[in-house]
Amino acid sequence: MQKRNGTIQYFSMDTFLGIDWGGTFTKLGLIDKDGKIIKKTSFSSLNSSQPDDFIKKISDNIKKYKNYNIKGIGVGAPGIINVEKGYIYYLPNIKGWENYPFKQVLEKRLSLPVFLDNDANIFALAEFQVGAAKGVKNAIFLTLGTGLGGALIIDGKIFHSKTSAAELAHFPVVKKGRKCGCGANGCIETFVGNRYIERKYKMKKRLSKEVSVKEIFKFAADNDKIAREIINEFVWYLGRYLAGMVNIFNPEKIIIGGGVSKSLHRFKKQLWDHIKNQAMEPNCKGTKIVKAKLGNWAGVIGAGLLVKEKLGR
Amino acid sequence: MQKRNGTIQYFSMDTFLGIDWGGTFTKLGLIDKDGKIIKKTSFSSLNSSQPDDFIKKISDNIKKYKNYNIKGIGVGAPGIINVEKGYIYYLPNIKGWENYPFKQVLEKRLSLPVFLDNDANIFALAEFQVGAAKGVKNAIFLTLGTGLGGALIIDGKIFHSKTSAAELAHFPVVKKGRKCGCGANGCIETFVGNRYIERKYKMKKRLSKEVSVKEIFKFAADNDKIAREIINEFVWYLGRYLAGMVNIFNPEKIIIGGGVSKSLHRFKKQLWDHIKNQAMEPNCKGTKIVKAKLGNWAGVIGAGLLVKEKLGR
Repeated sequence: MQKRNGTIQYFSMDTFLGIDWGGTFTKLGLIDKDGKIIKKTSFSSLNSSQPDDFIKKISDNIKKYKNYNIKGIGVGAPGIINVEKGYIYYLPNIKGWENYPFKQVLEKRLSLPVFLDNDANIFALAEFQVGAAKGVKNAIFLTLGTGLGGALIIDGKIFHSKTSAAELAHFPVVKKGRKCGCGANGCIETFVGNRYIERKYKMKKRLSKEVSVKEIFKFAADNDKIAREIINEFVWYLGRYLAGMVNIFNPEKIIIGGGVSKSLHRFKKQLWDHIKNQAMEPNCKGTKIVKAKLGNWAGVIGAGLLVKEKLGR
Repeated sequence: MQKRNGTIQYFSMDTFLGIDWGGTFTKLGLIDKDGKIIKKTSFSSLNSSQPDDFIKKISDNIKKYKNYNIKGIGVGAPGIINVEKGYIYYLPNIKGWENYPFKQVLEKRLSLPVFLDNDANIFALAEFQVGAAKGVKNAIFLTLGTGLGGALIIDGKIFHSKTSAAELAHFPVVKKGRKCGCGANGCIETFVGNRYIERKYKMKKRLSKEVSVKEIFKFAADNDKIAREIINEFVWYLGRYLAGMVNIFNPEKIIIGGGVSKSLHRFKKQLWDHIKNQAMEPNCKGTKIVKAKLGNWAGVIGAGLLVKEKLGR
């Protein structure tokens, strides 16, 4: 790194390009070896069901950074991935990507190494390397957003199988429940995903306008009875499910990210009480619930760090 | 190993002593480095709630093998263990062992290294090293007996946290269910553990005499309607739960051990159908359901192999 004319010159140092592919926006950024963002941008990905168009958008954006010494590209994608091959099985909320050889196509186009993983694993990697999960051996990572994202840190590594795994959202928690996006019914996602909570509130209140989970949390704190009932139910199911997960993993930390984590202070104690009352005592001993640290650009940081890790830099 | 007077002489080779501590019987055996049993014995452990008496029984039995070159002692215990310290938190079905420093006491008494783990982890270790799970990277291991035992093989190792983990049996699968031995309610164990199935059958049939799950499986095959209903429900819950586990782990194998595994041929296809219908397709791709191989002495073999592994032999 050299100083030239008073500005810092990054062009000679190694950088890693991270892409956080979301359902609404795709964020893209260059990070340095410490996970710091040097440059960033974002574009709408509402119409990303045409692979050719989406890949062109990505490569046009990357070309803007051509003066940087980019070592590789990391991508967090919202779906089920074959991580070894960099292959997309499918994206539940974006059609058109079934069995798509993403890594292969992008590497050919950009002549740079490409690494692909599920978005929740990428968030967890960022929090693990430079955020709230630094140094843990075993942790459960949940992103509470529109749906439920999940990842596991096991023995100091993000857990992977042949698929991106760990699909924590699709565990059935009732005998028969609402249909889930995955095709099954009664998955934990259908009790804790924003879209389900918002729909329930709108229905019970007979509202026609949209309402966000953040608002529902606020209404509950302001003694709106229906909001309170709905939030209590949300926390109850999340706690019951996490008691089961704690019995399996005895994690040091449960890290909560995603939009709902902004309201964590409102339900953390109640959530912990539900876990403690239902989990086996030695297995929840030492477990802490913490908020994810890295905010909106965590996915970009994680995707960049994935490249760094894979290239052994 | 030398031959003397026509008999094989084991006294000079390394051996490992394995103890499988069960609720009814405790089995004890010497194994060689390949996991083969050289000597074995068993004794009743129905009254093992007096630590001093039980430890005396163990050491008296071990003394019989004093001519063998025993390198250490491994123990699979039916409860929650601190594996690092060889410490028992508690045994759900045997009182008197709360917070007991088992490793420390036994090492002092026998002047040999002692290693302690949960019994299900020990079964899984045996199957992993010399049985049905040889060479797998990720697998789920279930022992279907009186209760439900569980272990995970993750990234080619038996998963442990600070506690013995993975307590797979205590995951809630309904909103509100029967009280479970762990203190919570609606855990998967309360739907698939023998004691619950047998109780249900006896109640529905208004039987006064005891009946085993093996018999209930047989009755179901012979068209006993109530037996069929109960077995169908058992397989349904097991499949639904395993679909959730498959979504998390995308395991190569699901290994079924314990008494019920003897009837696996009667329900394997139905079980797989339930899993396949509810799990995400890429996550159950390549997964196979297999029967544990090592039978009644698996726990002794695993406990012996634990010693070998820990001592790096």
